Amino acid sequence: MSNIAIVGAGLMGTATAWPLSDNNHNLRLIGTHLDADIIKSCKERRFHPRLKRILPEGVEPFYIEELAQALEDVEIIVGGVNSLGVRWLGRTLGPHLRPGQLIISVTKGLELQGEDQLVLLPDLVARAFPPLIRDQVTLAAIGGPCIAGELAGRRHSCVVFGSRDREAVERLASAFRTSYYHVWTTTDLFSLEICAALKNAFTLGVGIVAGLLERSGGIDEAEACMHNLAAAAFAEGCAEISTALRILGGTPGFAHALPGVGDLYVTSMGGRTVRLGRLLGLGHSYAEARELMAGETLESVEIVRVMGKALPKLEAQGLVSSEDFPLLRLLVDVIVHAKTLTLPLDAFFAEIKQGTP
Amino acid sequence: MSNIAIVGAGLMGTATAWPLSDNNHNLRLIGTHLDADIIKSCKERRFHPRLKRILPEGVEPFYIEELAQALEDVEIIVGGVNSLGVRWLGRTLGPHLRPGQLIISVTKGLELQGEDQLVLLPDLVARAFPPLIRDQVTLAAIGGPCIAGELAGRRHSCVVFGSRDREAVERLASAFRTSYYHVWTTTDLFSLEICAALKNAFTLGVGIVAGLLERSGGIDEAEACMHNLAAAAFAEGCAEISTALRILGGTPGFAHALPGVGDLYVTSMGGRTVRLGRLLGLGHSYAEARELMAGETLESVEIVRVMGKALPKLEAQGLVSSEDFPLLRLLVDVIVHAKTLTLPLDAFFAEIKQGTP
Repeated sequence: MSNIAIVGAGLMGTATAWPLSDNNHNLRLIGTHLDADIIKSCKERRFHPRLKRILPEGVEPFYIEELAQALEDVEIIVGGVNSLGVRWLGRTLGPHLRPGQLIISVTKGLELQGEDQLVLLPDLVARAFPPLIRDQVTLAAIGGPCIAGELAGRRHSCVVFGSRDREAVERLASAFRTSYYHVWTTTDLFSLEICAALKNAFTLGVGIVAGLLERSGGIDEAEACMHNLAAAAFAEGCAEISTALRILGGTPGFAHALPGVGDLYVTSMGGRTVRLGRLLGLGHSYAEARELMAGETLESVEIVRVMGKALPKLEAQGLVSSEDFPLLRLLVDVIVHAKTLTLPLDAFFAEIKQGTP
Repeated sequence: MSNIAIVGAGLMGTATAWPLSDNNHNLRLIGTHLDADIIKSCKERRFHPRLKRILPEGVEPFYIEELAQALEDVEIIVGGVNSLGVRWLGRTLGPHLRPGQLIISVTKGLELQGEDQLVLLPDLVARAFPPLIRDQVTLAAIGGPCIAGELAGRRHSCVVFGSRDREAVERLASAFRTSYYHVWTTTDLFSLEICAALKNAFTLGVGIVAGLLERSGGIDEAEACMHNLAAAAFAEGCAEISTALRILGGTPGFAHALPGVGDLYVTSMGGRTVRLGRLLGLGHSYAEARELMAGETLESVEIVRVMGKALPKLEAQGLVSSEDFPLLRLLVDVIVHAKTLTLPLDAFFAEIKQGTP
């Protein structure tokens, strides 16, 4: 039984409260400055308005102003912010950290720093910590397919915890594991986070096909959908995750495992990323789609922007050829360069053409 | 412009008539003895009752009794039977074959012969040919995600043609390729066919989750489905395809490409295999489910049976350990051994546990 703080009261951070509560930990749920309404509801009615559920036992809600108090004597901190909030998280947690603490992040994304360095979000959090404490705490992250509302509904969920520190990741896994929250562990944090970040981009491909179907008049008179095309986009996404892992020095096999294809599958079942893709497939420019989804955080767009900057650098280094990543390049063209959408199908699956899948 | 015969007037065989017709080939669509009603409708009204479409131009329908006439002067034969019909196809075609003909099969499956030999279906077709002609014709197969009704609706479809003969497979691809039927080629027929066969088994995993969701009362009050669990089953299926390719001497990368994950995705979007899985997830025994789906060809069951026989042989040879293939073993237990269904989640993803995905 540990004291555990969840910082960020959004969907995914809060959802970890269910397995943690079932394991009898003392939990403090701390909203960011954007979560004040959520925390108010949690304090007054124990009801989380976005998850639409009553909080489980043992969870105490805190406003951000109560952070210092809420972080007292915690062993584990769950980073529950989105990818735009990781620097804030690092700066905010920094002054309160103590040696030996474990910080596990649910955030999915990547950032490009300097000229050509792709930085994992847990490392970005750590970089914002005061230098003296930075090496005395351990960072970890959660990958794999996990819709927050299902975890909070105690539905079976299979995830992967990653940390470069084997002991830390095993300790975290045993703190979280329940009969329905199945946790695998890896020390290959890099491959885990590359998958977690890129699946948000490639899910746009599946969403685009949903839009193309509607635009073409929908299901036809003989009941034909566009599952064949969606499957091609899905497979190309999976193959491009594998290529990215290979090029960036990760483990390509993650692509056809839980963190790659598993997460790509679950994200393709619906949600913001599919909705954005659908709008693009319907023929909206990214600017129009962005307006239609005003107020929503679009992590898929962030990772497309990051990769749009990274690809030319990787090409300049000779790591990436112009034939690699046709789907990712399309997404960059549409979202960053406002180009018209055409799925470059015949550029897909170069690895089959070359006999090296 | 070639003379091309399609033998078997089911969904998938017939659907290839659309790209072939758009490429101006002369087409003969030959029903098997099971397709007499279909051919009658095609002859009388040019309407294919299962595809629910008017046949495209240039397709001449034939009853099986007219086979000899229909096969005159054909360069390419499309094998359009299901996996239970491949021996019949070989025996039936054999006497009519001429040197240089290409035979491309849409059938997906595997067979175990003798003690421990997994045989690809195109090879099974060829074995039924008279010995004198066997080496003078070339066998090929189609893999990748392709729902027949979508192809017949001229929806974009990306597939892989495989043959051990590079020249033959390129000739076939150029006969079939259109602006909507995108064809990649490979000489790795083995990996292509392993993917095509196994995806039918693993799609049952996704179907089972649909049944488990219904059995548990369906979507809950906060709108939680079981996509997390379906994604885990999907990812384990993909990982087990990769393992099978590695163990059997194929190319593991096919698992995260069009023939593996692409076909697994499209098959998971609905159809017989998902319906059978759903019935099993709802708690029906396989015998009950089989009765509820009376009259339907269940290729997923055939491949589960084949692998149920192959696994012990592969284990005896030391190629497979008892920890490999937990999802496939579950399917064998439920379908072959009438055991009760419990998803062995914690046995999944051994490759992550072992750090070797």
